Amino acid sequence: MLLSKAKIAEMPKRYRAAFVNSLSGFKSANLIGTTDSKGQNNLSIVSSVVHLGSDPALMGFIVRPPVVPRHSYENIIETGFFTINHVNQSIQKQAHQTSARYLKEESEFDKAGLTAGWVDDFIAPYVKESNLSMGMSLEQDVAIEANGTCLIIGRVEWVMLDQKWMGEDGFVNLVDAGTSAISGLDAYHQAVEPIRFTYAKPDRELQVIK
Amino acid sequence: MLLSKAKIAEMPKRYRAAFVNSLSGFKSANLIGTTDSKGQNNLSIVSSVVHLGSDPALMGFIVRPPVVPRHSYENIIETGFFTINHVNQSIQKQAHQTSARYLKEESEFDKAGLTAGWVDDFIAPYVKESNLSMGMSLEQDVAIEANGTCLIIGRVEWVMLDQKWMGEDGFVNLVDAGTSAISGLDAYHQAVEPIRFTYAKPDRELQVIK
Repeated sequence: MLLSKAKIAEMPKRYRAAFVNSLSGFKSANLIGTTDSKGQNNLSIVSSVVHLGSDPALMGFIVRPPVVPRHSYENIIETGFFTINHVNQSIQKQAHQTSARYLKEESEFDKAGLTAGWVDDFIAPYVKESNLSMGMSLEQDVAIEANGTCLIIGRVEWVMLDQKWMGEDGFVNLVDAGTSAISGLDAYHQAVEPIRFTYAKPDRELQVIK
Repeated sequence: MLLSKAKIAEMPKRYRAAFVNSLSGFKSANLIGTTDSKGQNNLSIVSSVVHLGSDPALMGFIVRPPVVPRHSYENIIETGFFTINHVNQSIQKQAHQTSARYLKEESEFDKAGLTAGWVDDFIAPYVKESNLSMGMSLEQDVAIEANGTCLIIGRVEWVMLDQKWMGEDGFVNLVDAGTSAISGLDAYHQAVEPIRFTYAKPDRELQVIK
């Protein structure tokens, strides 16, 4: 079936949102932890965290101010710090609940039933129930003129994870860590053990990494 | 285990790349199809396609010129068009092979063993073996100062997929479509059937969508 831009524009709003959100493929499932200067915490699920570079280690995610996750955005601009926390199978429901529009003086940690933790004097809270958390410092707030969204870019300050998930080559086994993937607006998946391939070069047959 | 920024900076280069590439969670697996003004085709795997908005339907992905996928980037700037094609289980190896550094006059379609197709007079080729393809027009090329990468933003011009994967509410079942996810630099996953939750509101219990 071939759907034109015009057909997509004619779709009812919620139908189109569900459809277009499915098109990019599987998405990362992360909770963004922030606080404001008065210590009011905020937690917000995002499916747009993207790897930007390894040296320095940079990640970004998309926000659409002033819509949700507006409080997260305000807190990041105010304090300069946030955390990224992997969603796993046992906290999928709590993670999804953070997408509800709570008031600024309400903490999604409390409302959704997740626990805030702190690493040393890093100001932004992480999610204790997450199996992989990162502390991030704001590096750049990129305005995207195309539709009024922003790409928030952060630098990795610390990573917390169980060493048993790390392979000899630095690869982290996200299946063992129980990390979830998202598709569409509201679907949470577990993944099966991967097939890994060797570094690709012209005229050399790829091998499967055992 | 808590790894500091300093510890990550000390990692050997390939180890760090494998590690940091694992941290954002599961990533989308897509092939970017392009051509130049002389009809020389190019195909490049990317794991950074991200949803930017549904109305208009916008997607973006990260490129690091002048590194791979340099030819894709040049072609998009030259012609203004590209395609995004989901990787599925049966073409994972071919998809990974497109990351080898071929010459500009070599087509990764031929080298990796994938078939180029065209929709009407849309200039950029799509991947016939893909189960979900999109035609994209270049909307914006956003320079990311933080590390010299670019976010290429495209507008969805058309979508090709099998209608049987589309639900009544617009959700596309990517498990049925066989779409792959990526973790790290080189790991290709299938996902299991998801759990879907209803739209989250404060003080209302989430329900599982059947």
